[in-house]
Amino acid sequence: MGNEENQYKVIGTRPIRPDGVDKVTGRAAFGADFSLPGTIVGRVLRSPHAHARIKSIDAKLALALPGVRAMVTGADFPELPDEITAGGEAPVNFRDVSHNVMARAKALYEGHAVAAVAATTAAIAEQALALIKVEYEVLPHVIDVRDAAADGAPVLHETMFTSGVEPAPKKPSNVAGRTEMGLGNVEEGFAAADVTVEREYTTQAVHQGYIEPHACVASVTTDGQATVWSTSQGQFMVREFCSRLLGMDRAAIRVVPSEIGGGFGGKTTVYLEPLAIALAKKSGKPVKMVMTRDEVFRATGPTSGASMKVKLGAKRDGTLTAGDMTLYYQAGAFAGGPAMLGCMTGFAPYALTNARAVGYDVVSNRPKAAAYRAPGAPMAAFAVESAMDELAQKLGMDPIELRLKNAAKKGTRAIYGVKFPEIGFVETLEAAKKHPHYSAPLGPNQARGVASGFWFNIGGQSSAAVHVNEDGTAEVVTGNPDIGGSRASMAMMAAEVLGIEYSKVKPTVGDTGQIGYSFLTGGSRVTFATGKAVCEAAQATVNELRARAAKLWECPIEDVEWKDGAAHPVGGQTDTRTVLSLAELAESAAKTGGPISGAVGINAAGAGAGFGTQICDVEIDPETGKVTVLRYTVVQDVGRAIHPAYVEGQLQGGAVQGIGWALNEEYVYDGNGRLDNPGFLDYRMPVASDLPMIDTVMIEVPNPGHPFGVRGVGETPIVPPLAAVANAVSRAAKVRLADLPISPPRLLAALDGK
Amino acid sequence: MGNEENQYKVIGTRPIRPDGVDKVTGRAAFGADFSLPGTIVGRVLRSPHAHARIKSIDAKLALALPGVRAMVTGADFPELPDEITAGGEAPVNFRDVSHNVMARAKALYEGHAVAAVAATTAAIAEQALALIKVEYEVLPHVIDVRDAAADGAPVLHETMFTSGVEPAPKKPSNVAGRTEMGLGNVEEGFAAADVTVEREYTTQAVHQGYIEPHACVASVTTDGQATVWSTSQGQFMVREFCSRLLGMDRAAIRVVPSEIGGGFGGKTTVYLEPLAIALAKKSGKPVKMVMTRDEVFRATGPTSGASMKVKLGAKRDGTLTAGDMTLYYQAGAFAGGPAMLGCMTGFAPYALTNARAVGYDVVSNRPKAAAYRAPGAPMAAFAVESAMDELAQKLGMDPIELRLKNAAKKGTRAIYGVKFPEIGFVETLEAAKKHPHYSAPLGPNQARGVASGFWFNIGGQSSAAVHVNEDGTAEVVTGNPDIGGSRASMAMMAAEVLGIEYSKVKPTVGDTGQIGYSFLTGGSRVTFATGKAVCEAAQATVNELRARAAKLWECPIEDVEWKDGAAHPVGGQTDTRTVLSLAELAESAAKTGGPISGAVGINAAGAGAGFGTQICDVEIDPETGKVTVLRYTVVQDVGRAIHPAYVEGQLQGGAVQGIGWALNEEYVYDGNGRLDNPGFLDYRMPVASDLPMIDTVMIEVPNPGHPFGVRGVGETPIVPPLAAVANAVSRAAKVRLADLPISPPRLLAALDGK
Repeated sequence: MGNEENQYKVIGTRPIRPDGVDKVTGRAAFGADFSLPGTIVGRVLRSPHAHARIKSIDAKLALALPGVRAMVTGADFPELPDEITAGGEAPVNFRDVSHNVMARAKALYEGHAVAAVAATTAAIAEQALALIKVEYEVLPHVIDVRDAAADGAPVLHETMFTSGVEPAPKKPSNVAGRTEMGLGNVEEGFAAADVTVEREYTTQAVHQGYIEPHACVASVTTDGQATVWSTSQGQFMVREFCSRLLGMDRAAIRVVPSEIGGGFGGKTTVYLEPLAIALAKKSGKPVKMVMTRDEVFRATGPTSGASMKVKLGAKRDGTLTAGDMTLYYQAGAFAGGPAMLGCMTGFAPYALTNARAVGYDVVSNRPKAAAYRAPGAPMAAFAVESAMDELAQKLGMDPIELRLKNAAKKGTRAIYGVKFPEIGFVETLEAAKKHPHYSAPLGPNQARGVASGFWFNIGGQSSAAVHVNEDGTAEVVTGNPDIGGSRASMAMMAAEVLGIEYSKVKPTVGDTGQIGYSFLTGGSRVTFATGKAVCEAAQATVNELRARAAKLWECPIEDVEWKDGAAHPVGGQTDTRTVLSLAELAESAAKTGGPISGAVGINAAGAGAGFGTQICDVEIDPETGKVTVLRYTVVQDVGRAIHPAYVEGQLQGGAVQGIGWALNEEYVYDGNGRLDNPGFLDYRMPVASDLPMIDTVMIEVPNPGHPFGVRGVGETPIVPPLAAVANAVSRAAKVRLADLPISPPRLLAALDGK
Repeated sequence: MGNEENQYKVIGTRPIRPDGVDKVTGRAAFGADFSLPGTIVGRVLRSPHAHARIKSIDAKLALALPGVRAMVTGADFPELPDEITAGGEAPVNFRDVSHNVMARAKALYEGHAVAAVAATTAAIAEQALALIKVEYEVLPHVIDVRDAAADGAPVLHETMFTSGVEPAPKKPSNVAGRTEMGLGNVEEGFAAADVTVEREYTTQAVHQGYIEPHACVASVTTDGQATVWSTSQGQFMVREFCSRLLGMDRAAIRVVPSEIGGGFGGKTTVYLEPLAIALAKKSGKPVKMVMTRDEVFRATGPTSGASMKVKLGAKRDGTLTAGDMTLYYQAGAFAGGPAMLGCMTGFAPYALTNARAVGYDVVSNRPKAAAYRAPGAPMAAFAVESAMDELAQKLGMDPIELRLKNAAKKGTRAIYGVKFPEIGFVETLEAAKKHPHYSAPLGPNQARGVASGFWFNIGGQSSAAVHVNEDGTAEVVTGNPDIGGSRASMAMMAAEVLGIEYSKVKPTVGDTGQIGYSFLTGGSRVTFATGKAVCEAAQATVNELRARAAKLWECPIEDVEWKDGAAHPVGGQTDTRTVLSLAELAESAAKTGGPISGAVGINAAGAGAGFGTQICDVEIDPETGKVTVLRYTVVQDVGRAIHPAYVEGQLQGGAVQGIGWALNEEYVYDGNGRLDNPGFLDYRMPVASDLPMIDTVMIEVPNPGHPFGVRGVGETPIVPPLAAVANAVSRAAKVRLADLPISPPRLLAALDGK
């Protein structure tokens, strides 16, 4: 930051977004915007019961309805082994995905798909759903995570036994697994403490809240070749999941990604695509499926609600001596919630030598949880950062000073084993401390909270290709949907390496038939990993350009260097040679060997960890319990901001989603386990008028694992807000708010209970 | 052939065509089958005059019509320099293309585009065309090629002076250029002859007759990024032509190819795409344009009609001593007909040491000629092979024996300079001679004709990528529209090199945003050049797979060999290593370095020349003049038939188109230069019921320039039929038919004149 400001020509500038105009004018084509001639409509019949045995499905009347073309139930999908598979790069139990996509013997939550039909119109498809007779045996259900983990709870899966405990249990349980990780000796650590804090915390399930519902079109030829157009965070993910769920070759499925109207982790799995393929196969017609908002809420993954306990011990000077946390995370109806990720991330900002984290992955009669921006981290951070705030209060220390005293640095070992390389956590704390926001005056019923947060970020497999066009412009192709501006950042990195203008590089999101395998857009991996692939592909292109110049100059390639978008003789010797621009080399490509391209596939390691610190000012209304966010500042180490405007957008968006999680969002179930608020009117996400402008401060501590120093920036910003808001409210209310959301009734109750 | 039959596992087999089921069920999406939400319709106003000055265009009323969104005229297109540009790889005068796409000062043929409008419906667009007032000054016109070349003919282009003549002419002329090429001394050759034949021949302009009319959709964002979906023989051609005609960067135009319902050379240029982009830009809406059949006939390229003179001299034993030909070829309204290609190909089958070919490229008030399957060759071959037949009759020799005596072989120098490498002309003659067809008995009014033909075939620039999927299946991507089965042949070559089953390889035709530059599908280049790129990309993939196995085995890559789709230790040493299949290596790709791909761009040289000989039996009806084709056999050196069924289809299709050219097809103009038969009812192409099954014999003399020996096969088969049919009819009628088509009135006239 600062002294490197001018080293790049394109990186760090803020060019026009290639997807911007289309998106604001409504021209961009999202999942529901694609159709083929002859397309018919698929709709899903969903369980009205939270837990029920499916005794029979009678579709005679439905199939007899004119216009109905096909129907599928669980019987149409192959049974898969109950095992965890690599699944791209994240571990996945495809049997569970298959059973989630279409129920088999039991419906495990209200909204669980039970059958699907395809008909010539949506109205006929809806009529057909009403004509399907499903005989259910309603079973006792369980919604709360602690209730579900308790002995005697209704068991969802008779074949599920808690993993990670000794001796192996003989009784089935809703606790899918127990994870423990640690450092040092926690008991000794607490014994050495002068001060301890210990508290239980809860958070509620919240939905990713993407504006665009799930949508797809599938077309299958009579010789079994499928093409799927869909909105997702990964066309290769969709291909793999469909391939596994339907027993088809990868090569028999081509997935073309649409624009995506938000995913936030919620579009890292499939719901409709396998049904659409199955219906398309049966009907011989292209099948389009689009969820309603109601279906999105009832049947797609929210993130886990959590029940947590955290204990911290510290010396009187603030030095942490020990930390202990126990996390119960909802997994929804199938195992695989992010409890382990909570264990990994909660203590990560601090140089703790004695720490323990125990996580429980618990199923209950809720929709299967899906990833949501830094999956598992915001809840654990809420607990730990709340405890840090309470500790600071007990010690009479400034909360930033307490964090600075214990901040993880290069060389700090995290609870999950890694030793951090260059990280910028201290820099975010210092920047927050000196930010005008931190010393601004506060009025009555107002208070300031701070919290920090961490996300490890991931790398993984990505492919990229750079093609030089005949006129010296270039194409850059990657295999990742553009959610947060990756077309711009890919084009910028390619332009920087090639040495040409950004406007001369056209970024394209490839389909699975045209670009090599790329893991999905998530984990804050794309700008880092796919960006690294783009840099390497562009570098390979530069090397090819040098080789072409060498051919024209009849010299060794070593005598040709590339700078400012042109081949130069090394050392500038200028016998018969002159400078050859990229455009000139492109024009002569035919005679020097053909089209000029660079293409790579990589498995990127070295994703830089992301740390952030956020400051939140609130005012509480003691009469109504309403919390108003007055001012909010996000400080984050972003490694290198390729396109700073997009990075700022990530920081702002993460903070806003976290504020909603802290103050308003929650799943409200009735006594029958049915969701009471499946719409944006009753499920209250913050909108622009609820919030101040979110201020951002980008710290750039370059990640040595990326050519331009990129770190993932998309997930870290959602980690601190839950605690930042709760800490501010707790200070304003003078009572610790440990249960989210801090909705007016809950705040009033806390004020009353004080 | 024969002894190599079993060397391949996939090459030479006849697997299911990947595009077959879609095409016969109507699911395949052709140019007119694509639409975007909000698409409007573009239509073209065309000149009713063969030659007219455009004095003014008044569009006020048209633009005032509700629903009309945009209009363009010549004034909307930039003026380009009048020069020949490389244009991909073929020489193109983009000013002429621009003026052909939209007339400027003059309309040069009936059907010439004068304006285009876009409106919300086709009906409104048609109404709008009727409301455009164009004031024309009608000029004298000329249709016939000899008339056009004559002094005093109405001149189309005041700035066109005949090139290739000395001294440079000072008067503008319709003769755009004169080409001459030669070998030895023609006068001495004729002096040494015992026998000579000399005759004039004519052929008529014929249309490529593709079933699918030209069609496209263009969408342009407000920041100037265009996407075009269109049917063409080259998405990169469309991109380049639009880029040049509209002054846009290549990177600002993405062209997505649809399926193509035939092109035969006629879709190697643009008509609608630049208009659609211009209308989309002006209207802000996606614009769809689809030609009617009438428009296809009046405004898209037929091939040239020709007026030719050929003289041959031979010794009494049949040895040719000299050949001389003069060709006048129609270019249509703009220069650039295939006269030079006629000069190159006419004498090419024969080892002539004294030869001369002179060609004239002549413009007239007809639609600009476009390429048609072996452009320029069938007409010249008609003249030369007719003369050969007449010579054989004069000498009393079997026509195949005469050809065998003079056949070009390896080492023969062609008139255009090349010395042939391995070619299979003699083999086709031998095979024809011993084919049962050649000795089958004939009845009254029946006769047999033979003729040979040649096409040089081309190579050029192609890109290809092979991507290994996670399950060991593979994608193969190329940049050429699949007209004649290239998806199948690309997948087969990739499967052969990778050593996996054909069904595990998915071929995809990439769009210009996703695959590297590839010259168009034409010239019989794709199976050769793009196939070579696929072989190299697959080989690069195999090398990467070997590297991954070496990594797992911790050995040098040289110790790993690839056979039968798996990595094997060299020499079979089996210490700790076993065999690793492609699927196993694919599964472990993440841990050995990431996605496995191979991508190349090449400029392929070494396209093998294609020779063929065809036998035709006819029966003539002396009462009606009708010619019935009784039996037809195509013998051709195909180098290596990757997918023999497709190759047979090419041989049959070429012969059928040539038969139509010989017997029925022609452009009929009225006295005002207006086309009288712009539809398939009046423009008579042969249909299945007109013809016997076309028998095929594939000779395989491998082309050393291709890894599997491929030669282009698509164009040679249309070269001999004109003469094969005419020779048969001439022998049956006992009078030489030198003017095509040999329609009933023309045959009756010849019989009468006998």
